[in-house]
Amino acid sequence: MEMESAIMTAGEERAETGQLTETEGMTDLARRARRATVELAVCPASTRDKALWAAAAALRESSQAILEANTQDLSLSSATSEAFLDRLRLTPERVEAMARGLEDMADLQDPVGRVLEEWTRPNGLRIRRVATPVGVIGVIYESRPNVGADAAGLCIKSGNAVLLRGGSESIHTARAIHKAMQAGLRAAGLPEDAVLIAPDADRKHVAEMLSAAGLIDLLIPRGGRSLVERVQREARVPVLAHAEGLCHTYIHAAADHNMARRIVANAKMRRVGICGATETLLVDAAIAPAILPLIVSDLQELGCTFKADNAARKIVPSLPAATEQDFDTEWLDAILNIAVVDGVDEALEHIRQHSSSHTEAIITADEVAATRFMNGTDSAVVMWNASTQFCDGGEFGFGAEIGIATGRFHARGPVGVEQLTTFRYEVIGTGQVRS
Amino acid sequence: MEMESAIMTAGEERAETGQLTETEGMTDLARRARRATVELAVCPASTRDKALWAAAAALRESSQAILEANTQDLSLSSATSEAFLDRLRLTPERVEAMARGLEDMADLQDPVGRVLEEWTRPNGLRIRRVATPVGVIGVIYESRPNVGADAAGLCIKSGNAVLLRGGSESIHTARAIHKAMQAGLRAAGLPEDAVLIAPDADRKHVAEMLSAAGLIDLLIPRGGRSLVERVQREARVPVLAHAEGLCHTYIHAAADHNMARRIVANAKMRRVGICGATETLLVDAAIAPAILPLIVSDLQELGCTFKADNAARKIVPSLPAATEQDFDTEWLDAILNIAVVDGVDEALEHIRQHSSSHTEAIITADEVAATRFMNGTDSAVVMWNASTQFCDGGEFGFGAEIGIATGRFHARGPVGVEQLTTFRYEVIGTGQVRS
Repeated sequence: MEMESAIMTAGEERAETGQLTETEGMTDLARRARRATVELAVCPASTRDKALWAAAAALRESSQAILEANTQDLSLSSATSEAFLDRLRLTPERVEAMARGLEDMADLQDPVGRVLEEWTRPNGLRIRRVATPVGVIGVIYESRPNVGADAAGLCIKSGNAVLLRGGSESIHTARAIHKAMQAGLRAAGLPEDAVLIAPDADRKHVAEMLSAAGLIDLLIPRGGRSLVERVQREARVPVLAHAEGLCHTYIHAAADHNMARRIVANAKMRRVGICGATETLLVDAAIAPAILPLIVSDLQELGCTFKADNAARKIVPSLPAATEQDFDTEWLDAILNIAVVDGVDEALEHIRQHSSSHTEAIITADEVAATRFMNGTDSAVVMWNASTQFCDGGEFGFGAEIGIATGRFHARGPVGVEQLTTFRYEVIGTGQVRS
Repeated sequence: MEMESAIMTAGEERAETGQLTETEGMTDLARRARRATVELAVCPASTRDKALWAAAAALRESSQAILEANTQDLSLSSATSEAFLDRLRLTPERVEAMARGLEDMADLQDPVGRVLEEWTRPNGLRIRRVATPVGVIGVIYESRPNVGADAAGLCIKSGNAVLLRGGSESIHTARAIHKAMQAGLRAAGLPEDAVLIAPDADRKHVAEMLSAAGLIDLLIPRGGRSLVERVQREARVPVLAHAEGLCHTYIHAAADHNMARRIVANAKMRRVGICGATETLLVDAAIAPAILPLIVSDLQELGCTFKADNAARKIVPSLPAATEQDFDTEWLDAILNIAVVDGVDEALEHIRQHSSSHTEAIITADEVAATRFMNGTDSAVVMWNASTQFCDGGEFGFGAEIGIATGRFHARGPVGVEQLTTFRYEVIGTGQVRS
């Protein structure tokens, strides 16, 4: 590839995107996005779906240009970590997956306009709660360029405008993807300002987004811990918190042994790097002597190592000792914390101390214990006799997902298109006045 | 009343409330409240209702002490405005209303544990979304002492712990009410830390609450504009925004004249000081010559004055001229803005420019126009052929209400006990693992 021709000057870039003047920052873009929401809020689902189909086609058509831009980013990157570069890298298969993802979103039911509740008052007023778009969503992301397409697609599907700010290391890829998204909007007759991208890699754009109260309705940070924490700390705008997944699986005294072994192996080892992977195994003291050696053996065979409390080490002396800090650590690796607890309440107390409010699971045949456990957790998702790895938008039936929310509001758990809506009340009368 | 004996020393007060050490601030109280949520989250509805009934009884029993504390606050107040003093003042009737309010809340259905949605996945996993308490709610309020009982009652009903910080001008009243609330908790066997109150009038307590991320789950400011704006500006904690009610009523070309006159009179003049009062009347140009003079005359008879745009003044020349600023003003008084608009879209554009996202209404017999109007507004509540004054928790059937939320998330419109809950997902399996 000829590097020289592929690298446009800043001026050419701006002329090319047709987006900006010299002085436009994220605040200006947010205002443009806001104006776009007026049309987005009322356009039919078929129009939004058409935009997604057309954007998918545009991604495929410009696949070569996207891959060339990606190569440019990769060669400009000073990173050496293969894991980092892999997150940055696009392949023809990954571009195809982006396109297919948009088409899958188009097939989802329209989340806008759903009647969530309706009732009639004694005075005859008919009241209903109706789903509406959130408005302007800001997505701040690192590394993975596909977030630009995935997030933009989910926002368009749910009638929202989106402001994208990707990492500086993938800026050329992000722009190439953005062009395809805008081509999709144009084809459907929707305003191009429905999907806007930060003009350059300047860090001030992030700060502007964090303080854009009233202009941006929701911020979604997608990336490493320091990004998410910074956004949560500094944002004056509501943030969809997608924090750590320090998930627990508790084997209760009345658990079926085979079920427990199967579930724990899956919950830890199916994919160790996802937020729904179990990080801490809690084993009831009543069952631990019988089952813990078997589980350790199962997991060792799969390549897992351990950090265990004293009670666990009494049962399996070869287990390495855990520190208190370990129980607060999301390993995202083939490392499992193990603690022995005495009953549901002690399991809940451990979870209360260490959980990140993501997903917790209990394995038991005892419905009373399961109910006590589920009612006593304060996480977004709690499971009974299932693997924590099911905490996923696709597995929940939401279709695509923009992340797993671990905060307390608006959305909790997997965030799909329905969770990117808010609501309004419609009150339909026949001339009633209030006494 | 003997002032001397009624004024306790700071030390005596602390010993009396049994709450604090010298060093406890709102952060410490928030931690205590957090511990209380563990029990609140799992206690049955009957226990919470018992606490409300007992607190109502305690309010009545200590009515004299509450009124004496209130007299103390009134005499210590340097305020001269009768409206201010009236907000501060309690009477036997107002104490009785507080007690009855708690009893009404006890009669409401339990909002905790409601199954909001449930579905079964192809792999047999049963998933359901279940309402749960929010956790620790902070209420920062001014003047009206009854907020201390109302807000605490709503929080207890919905399984939440609450931290109260009232205005310094009503601190003795607030403490007396707080004692009654704690008596109710004790009678039901619930932790007293479920309802805590700021230790004194120090302004630092407000700042501490605003920054208590992770300790306080939701902040609800109840008071004047400057309080609400400060909280929204400085809070690092989710805020239930209860902002202005700059409500619009639009008389469409196809409105029934008599219905329009009746609704507008009620929407403006039923009670001018509430957030659901209409501040701006939009009249369609097609109907204005016929109806505007009648409406002006109707409202003049009720004591209303006006601020009108040029088009309105062409029809009724005696109308005073409005400035652009007037259309951004929530009068909370017998003053009505009037503008003539040309069709639904122009009405929507005016609303977009000036609305506070509270409540808008259209009066018309044309369903197409009504639908276009409702879909095109971005406010929490939109009404068709009804008075904006219906935007109220009681009128919606929610029972008591903690305010009208005008933000975009979690709750919009009237916030009753159901809106003081969030949710979790419960996933019930039979041993499924993810492939």
